[in-house]
Amino acid sequence: MTASGTLKMICSLGRVGSLVLRVAQMTSSAVSMAVLFIDGDVDLHAAFSYEIAAMSFLLVWSSALVCLDVYSLKEHRNVQTPKLLRSIVIGDWLSFFLSLSAACSSAGVLILYTHDLHYWQTHTTPILYCEISTAVAFTVTGFVFVSASVTFITLASSD
Amino acid sequence: MTASGTLKMICSLGRVGSLVLRVAQMTSSAVSMAVLFIDGDVDLHAAFSYEIAAMSFLLVWSSALVCLDVYSLKEHRNVQTPKLLRSIVIGDWLSFFLSLSAACSSAGVLILYTHDLHYWQTHTTPILYCEISTAVAFTVTGFVFVSASVTFITLASSD
Repeated sequence: MTASGTLKMICSLGRVGSLVLRVAQMTSSAVSMAVLFIDGDVDLHAAFSYEIAAMSFLLVWSSALVCLDVYSLKEHRNVQTPKLLRSIVIGDWLSFFLSLSAACSSAGVLILYTHDLHYWQTHTTPILYCEISTAVAFTVTGFVFVSASVTFITLASSD
Repeated sequence: MTASGTLKMICSLGRVGSLVLRVAQMTSSAVSMAVLFIDGDVDLHAAFSYEIAAMSFLLVWSSALVCLDVYSLKEHRNVQTPKLLRSIVIGDWLSFFLSLSAACSSAGVLILYTHDLHYWQTHTTPILYCEISTAVAFTVTGFVFVSASVTFITLASSD
């Protein structure tokens, strides 16, 4: 079996792998936001506000898909209908581009602060929190990429 | 014929549409870099240096593909071999993610400058140049996305 076939078998919609991925997305996006809120200085930076908006969308989106996966696993129902898969592919790729752009813009601002403006010496703790949040946002992006690819492969092979 | 079929017929590797797209990518990435260099204050900002690096890569990549398209159109040779298409798909998607991340990080820094730090009043001209450069970088990302999608569709239907 090819790598994409194995990935599809384990992680496609309604399987345990998909549930694990969605739970990982949900918790990571919540952690990414929570770390920024600990700092308490979030509303100052538009880039981090955008990251919070993207992570909020991702939290809602992945929570809905966790519910769908749990329903499918509990009731032993096949939820892989082409119509549903098509909607999820669109939502997943939208989430992917949203979280990638948010993580990249936050990283750009962080590098400006630490590398160019040398805020690292005077604002060590807030910058550390922002760095953790951005790193987690990149991790979320990775998880969403895997989910989006698997759903796309499932849709392509079901059509 | 479907939309993807029409797009494939016009813009696939070795066609006039592909050449037009590659020339647009080449000139846009050159313009995006040139606008930043006019400012003369580029090396101060790591985010814009990353944009310059991404646009340089894109300039080299699209120039190589312009040569390939010109060769194919002039010599009436079919260059759509699976091996070549596979390499171009990888290169195109790499360019896409590279230019998207560069454009997003530049946009993050620019929003920080204009929205949060209110540099707009004191540094109107340099910020205007950076805004033009970032907007052009987003346009390049759009062009690369079209090229990458068409090459992917061509590869998928040729396998």
